[in-house]
Amino acid sequence: MQTERPKRTTIKDVAKEANVSVATISYVLNGKESISEETKERVRAAIQKLNYVPDLSARGLSAKSSKLIGVVIPQTEPGSHLMLTNPFYSEIVSSIEYSARINGYHLLISGTDADADYLKLAMERKLDGIVIIGMYPDEFYNELKKTRIPIVLVDSYCLDHYFHSVQINDRYGAYIATKHLLENGHREIALICGVQKEGGVIRKRYEGYADALKEFGVPVRKDHVFEGVVDFDSGLALAQRVVKSGVPFTAAFATADILAIGAMKAFRSLGWAIPDRISIVGFDDLSISRYMDPALTTVHQDIHRKGTSAMEMILRSIQYPEEGKQELTLPVTLVERESVRRM
Amino acid sequence: MQTERPKRTTIKDVAKEANVSVATISYVLNGKESISEETKERVRAAIQKLNYVPDLSARGLSAKSSKLIGVVIPQTEPGSHLMLTNPFYSEIVSSIEYSARINGYHLLISGTDADADYLKLAMERKLDGIVIIGMYPDEFYNELKKTRIPIVLVDSYCLDHYFHSVQINDRYGAYIATKHLLENGHREIALICGVQKEGGVIRKRYEGYADALKEFGVPVRKDHVFEGVVDFDSGLALAQRVVKSGVPFTAAFATADILAIGAMKAFRSLGWAIPDRISIVGFDDLSISRYMDPALTTVHQDIHRKGTSAMEMILRSIQYPEEGKQELTLPVTLVERESVRRM
Repeated sequence: MQTERPKRTTIKDVAKEANVSVATISYVLNGKESISEETKERVRAAIQKLNYVPDLSARGLSAKSSKLIGVVIPQTEPGSHLMLTNPFYSEIVSSIEYSARINGYHLLISGTDADADYLKLAMERKLDGIVIIGMYPDEFYNELKKTRIPIVLVDSYCLDHYFHSVQINDRYGAYIATKHLLENGHREIALICGVQKEGGVIRKRYEGYADALKEFGVPVRKDHVFEGVVDFDSGLALAQRVVKSGVPFTAAFATADILAIGAMKAFRSLGWAIPDRISIVGFDDLSISRYMDPALTTVHQDIHRKGTSAMEMILRSIQYPEEGKQELTLPVTLVERESVRRM
Repeated sequence: MQTERPKRTTIKDVAKEANVSVATISYVLNGKESISEETKERVRAAIQKLNYVPDLSARGLSAKSSKLIGVVIPQTEPGSHLMLTNPFYSEIVSSIEYSARINGYHLLISGTDADADYLKLAMERKLDGIVIIGMYPDEFYNELKKTRIPIVLVDSYCLDHYFHSVQINDRYGAYIATKHLLENGHREIALICGVQKEGGVIRKRYEGYADALKEFGVPVRKDHVFEGVVDFDSGLALAQRVVKSGVPFTAAFATADILAIGAMKAFRSLGWAIPDRISIVGFDDLSISRYMDPALTTVHQDIHRKGTSAMEMILRSIQYPEEGKQELTLPVTLVERESVRRM
């Protein structure tokens, strides 16, 4: 969008079309309050008609703009300190970067925790926007609002009107995963999940699991829930606990593919063939899920679109700062592969 | 290193210890040519003795420092545009980020190609250092030198003295992988590899493969080499060509784990069980290699150390700009898992 082209629409063209001064266009783009709604509307219509893209590299605007977008990734594993160990993060960061790049922005990635230090960083670096993945304490969100920087929360159930939001229907995703197992005749279904936090993604997925069980008249039992951190080794360990529990499980629903993949490895090493002895359904549809043998049946979410949508919301928020909260809930679907058998 | 601590060693302590002025220390740290070698040596000894870490956040130095490190990742797949599709990149970026973070730096990641635009970006962003992964055209390296920014090349066989370098012994790694197959009685060994470029990593790995074959008196044959891009789908496609070739292969060496993992999937879907019908060895030891079933026998390289070493070289180059080229070749070892059988 930033490349120079012949006959590029300029701010003058827009001013002419909207019958206002160039300064007025600039005011509208920069969200000045003093412009009337009627004028704003006229300017927006002209921008849309002419397909005008503000040249952010032009001197006047770039003084305010760092063209840097911050991405915050949760540090779930205090031991490893490596931010991209779950392929989910590398996949979404790739997509955010792609969308940023084609719009002339760069990503500042940082494995820092979402705390006061990050706010300092955001101000010092003059970030033009921030994409925050995951759930954080309320105080952090409250502090973030003070920055006045456009912020998109990905996979957070924070309801604050300040933040734009991209998410999926986690509860529904878990419901269709569990229902798929129930429809295939399974009744003893282990839940292998991350740590449940109030209002968090994992809690929603637990609720979806419970919804499906209730629909089929199967009691929801605490000793069917195996909770740990979300990584491969935790998947291994949780599956070992599933086997050792003595409960005659025939299926497991893992709330993340990386957990499912760890669990598959442990099940097999303990002699539980997949899907003959135990069926398993994951969640995320990471690229590696189809590399597995058997390939993992899982809940597909469009990680690429999640990333690009987050970036697009920031761009829109920069361009139309007077607009309100943007929200997007992406659909999820079940992808049947080879890890579930009919009882 | 940047955190405030009581009794932190200051530049004054170093000046006192080295018996020079504070300004002289600053000159040495900033690589001023006019300081004598003898004085430089004295200052360095004092810095080492007192374990002094320059406070880059202090006003005087920070004006020159952006505390930003650029990371260039090759865009191997024109179609996808996503920079982290090969887990090798997400693993090394995580490690560079970790090392940058604990030293008070941030990463600017960009999937841009290594071209004139990147040079512009490097100057505009005042990058303090750049880590460049992979091989690029000579002209790019020549342009890069003009920036005078400390640059570390990872996995490049560019010999220019300007650049610091972190690599592994690719030829030796491929040699031990192939030798392992030969020692297990295999003689018809397919090479599944990326596109060979003169002086590139893949060419070195091809040479290591050929070295081992020659040592065992096995002819090196062109129709045993299957070349494509380095990703999962290419691994699938190349393995299909291996099966259809009609050559009675009993083993394959893949020059990257992601190729091996794609190949495993294709072999099995065509009825070639692993390792019963075909043995396979990979290269890289990505985390996902041990998730596979059977787990992949592969050449281990220390990706984490590769990333942190690259960052450490940049820090050292910033601190001692008068020092010359730093080079590190990390060892590789064979990790025996489950994908090779004895004939």
